[in-house]
Amino acid sequence: MESFTSEKEYLQELASRSALPEGFRAATAAVRFFPRERTLAEPLAMNLSLIALEEATASFAGVFTRNRFPGAPVLLGRERLARPASRGVLVNNRISNVCTAHGRQDAEDLLEGLGAETGFAGAEYFAASTGIIGWQLPVAEMRAAIPGLVAGLQASTILPVARAIMTTDAFPKVRRARVGGGSIVGTAKGAGMIEPNMATLLCFLCTDVAVDREILREELAWAVQHSLNRISIDSDQSTSDTALAFASGRRGAVSRDELREGLLAVLGALAGDIVRNAEGGGHVIRVRVEGARDEATGLGIGRAIVNSPLVKTAVHGNDPNVGRIVSAVGDYTGNAGLALDPRAMLVRMGGVEIFSAGCFRLDAEKEKKLSTYLHDCGWQAGLKGYPPHDRSVAIDVVLDGAAPPVEVMGSDLSCEYVKENADYRS
Amino acid sequence: MESFTSEKEYLQELASRSALPEGFRAATAAVRFFPRERTLAEPLAMNLSLIALEEATASFAGVFTRNRFPGAPVLLGRERLARPASRGVLVNNRISNVCTAHGRQDAEDLLEGLGAETGFAGAEYFAASTGIIGWQLPVAEMRAAIPGLVAGLQASTILPVARAIMTTDAFPKVRRARVGGGSIVGTAKGAGMIEPNMATLLCFLCTDVAVDREILREELAWAVQHSLNRISIDSDQSTSDTALAFASGRRGAVSRDELREGLLAVLGALAGDIVRNAEGGGHVIRVRVEGARDEATGLGIGRAIVNSPLVKTAVHGNDPNVGRIVSAVGDYTGNAGLALDPRAMLVRMGGVEIFSAGCFRLDAEKEKKLSTYLHDCGWQAGLKGYPPHDRSVAIDVVLDGAAPPVEVMGSDLSCEYVKENADYRS
Repeated sequence: MESFTSEKEYLQELASRSALPEGFRAATAAVRFFPRERTLAEPLAMNLSLIALEEATASFAGVFTRNRFPGAPVLLGRERLARPASRGVLVNNRISNVCTAHGRQDAEDLLEGLGAETGFAGAEYFAASTGIIGWQLPVAEMRAAIPGLVAGLQASTILPVARAIMTTDAFPKVRRARVGGGSIVGTAKGAGMIEPNMATLLCFLCTDVAVDREILREELAWAVQHSLNRISIDSDQSTSDTALAFASGRRGAVSRDELREGLLAVLGALAGDIVRNAEGGGHVIRVRVEGARDEATGLGIGRAIVNSPLVKTAVHGNDPNVGRIVSAVGDYTGNAGLALDPRAMLVRMGGVEIFSAGCFRLDAEKEKKLSTYLHDCGWQAGLKGYPPHDRSVAIDVVLDGAAPPVEVMGSDLSCEYVKENADYRS
Repeated sequence: MESFTSEKEYLQELASRSALPEGFRAATAAVRFFPRERTLAEPLAMNLSLIALEEATASFAGVFTRNRFPGAPVLLGRERLARPASRGVLVNNRISNVCTAHGRQDAEDLLEGLGAETGFAGAEYFAASTGIIGWQLPVAEMRAAIPGLVAGLQASTILPVARAIMTTDAFPKVRRARVGGGSIVGTAKGAGMIEPNMATLLCFLCTDVAVDREILREELAWAVQHSLNRISIDSDQSTSDTALAFASGRRGAVSRDELREGLLAVLGALAGDIVRNAEGGGHVIRVRVEGARDEATGLGIGRAIVNSPLVKTAVHGNDPNVGRIVSAVGDYTGNAGLALDPRAMLVRMGGVEIFSAGCFRLDAEKEKKLSTYLHDCGWQAGLKGYPPHDRSVAIDVVLDGAAPPVEVMGSDLSCEYVKENADYRS
């Protein structure tokens, strides 16, 4: 169990996780600009971030959103996966480069600018954007910042990048795992619009072990499927979701099993960080579904619970309104046309049985116990710069089918979420 | 365009809609009780409502939730559709009789009590429950109230029932339509947990025209499909959703077309009332999808927009963050594996083009115009006893497919929704 009592404590821990693997450099730069789409008195601030390999690598991988209106960096990134080698990724926050008249050209121009400054082909870089959808990138201002960005590359830490890619995130997120003779270090941003098949989530992984390109791609896809794709904050999948991994190979080879374990450790922990950081959230909800008839049904049930606004608001209020959990399961299975016999379902919250053999199992004492449990699992105010603890509200659904257990994580729903999203752009 | 400047004005209008069709009587009674599942200092209040036919009718129809954990009244109601005749429905608010140890027996006992008091078979009545899921009905206290309930039957107005079935509803809902030589009068309750395939929605329709039982059933199903099933407040479908219709036949026959038109008018208007009453809502969002490849896809796109928490919160804040609309469409179609070429989509908000030919069409002037439009479509505070107006935020999605237009209605998402649902039961 992890807990922090101050931002300083959290940042100390983060610093220890943030050392860049061998063969990587990182830098950030600030940009100020006036958007074309809104009249403002003061310019807006944007951050550019660069993660660059010292030498081009053939071992790189990417997983992208399934949204049908992907951003230009996603479209470009899918193509660039076919290239023989890559040198890294250029990231901006504040505006997500999606469906604008020259979005593709804008992304290419920026990477050409980066290539010119570093002396390599622009096509060897990936781009990633996050922020407001529908606005155009301030390309001139961004290009002007690239020389300073490249000049600032350093080999010691990914922490400035973890900060610079944040949008509504309350705290930077970095995780690391040892693997073979080296390490995997990952950072991610994302706090809302989080739903399976990636969040508005940008995630960048660097490792200094040597791994075959195809193996890295398969293992990244598998690990994303079992981590980032099993969290859900508000059921919205963004246009720009991107996870990229690069391997420098400096620290020798690693077994496939070790790689898988390391990727899952880093991505699973980052997924937890993202849910804990859910916009305005006050609880993490962790639903475990055991004995569904197949994995997809188990995941569907878990998501139905963590996505139900009624479950989310009840948990937010520390109210063990467990009827809503059962109703969410019945709603999902009913709409999906899946058979489900209420007599074959058991539901627990915090280990306490609340439904079995077709009936609720509630009494005044249990209700009181569950209220206290919910209170203890939460945090009272919004997150201010660090996650206070990693406790979560455990909901177990046990069915009589044969599928192995699956787990889905989500956040509660608070007033702060609504406020944050009611005028995100102002 | 309807608008009201005071509760009194609204209630005057409602009184004029509420006259009971010939052959019907209605009554309400109050019950006070201590729930077994929570220790309380003060008893809780529950209302009983009765809609009764003066003579049993063979012409009655019901549509129920598809939730896999239906309440006992739903299970009972499905069976009772097969009976030759019905005499009406007994309704309670406060507790939804779902999955308790004796829920089925409780519902039957109450209807037996009602039968004993009225001198008919208990099996000729339907039951309906709405409120907290998971708690047991206070059967003894409810039975004790039945004699008073029956004694209070009157033939003039359905308005007391419209009030008594409310839970978190801000105002009572009654709609009427003339049909043939008679009328259809309907009332509904529902303000949250509203999603296609019925809301936590109880809806009761009374008509004094004569209609064949099978025709009434087919037409009720069709009209529910095109009204109540096209609204969505929070994507939760309840365990107790029920729509019942009874025809007394006192005013002669009616053509099928007229019946359909009348049912759709009443149910469509009630659906609008429910969305307008969405818990904490400040805007109604009305999405029209034209040219989808089929009706199901059109409805899916419409629901994806009105269910997106990010769209809902932006509308709530009068923020024309239209990128979220496009993203919601892309998210839905991407996850559903449906092809959708961004270049073939046009999106308008309030008649203003915001996306076409693959690109956002935004500028500072449009943003300002749309902010004003959103502001004008909303109401500032929570609803207090009456709906101020029936304006809605119009979002049009135009695609290049062949399906006829479909429309879906939903509400925005406000802090008040969260507060209301964070401890609904306290």
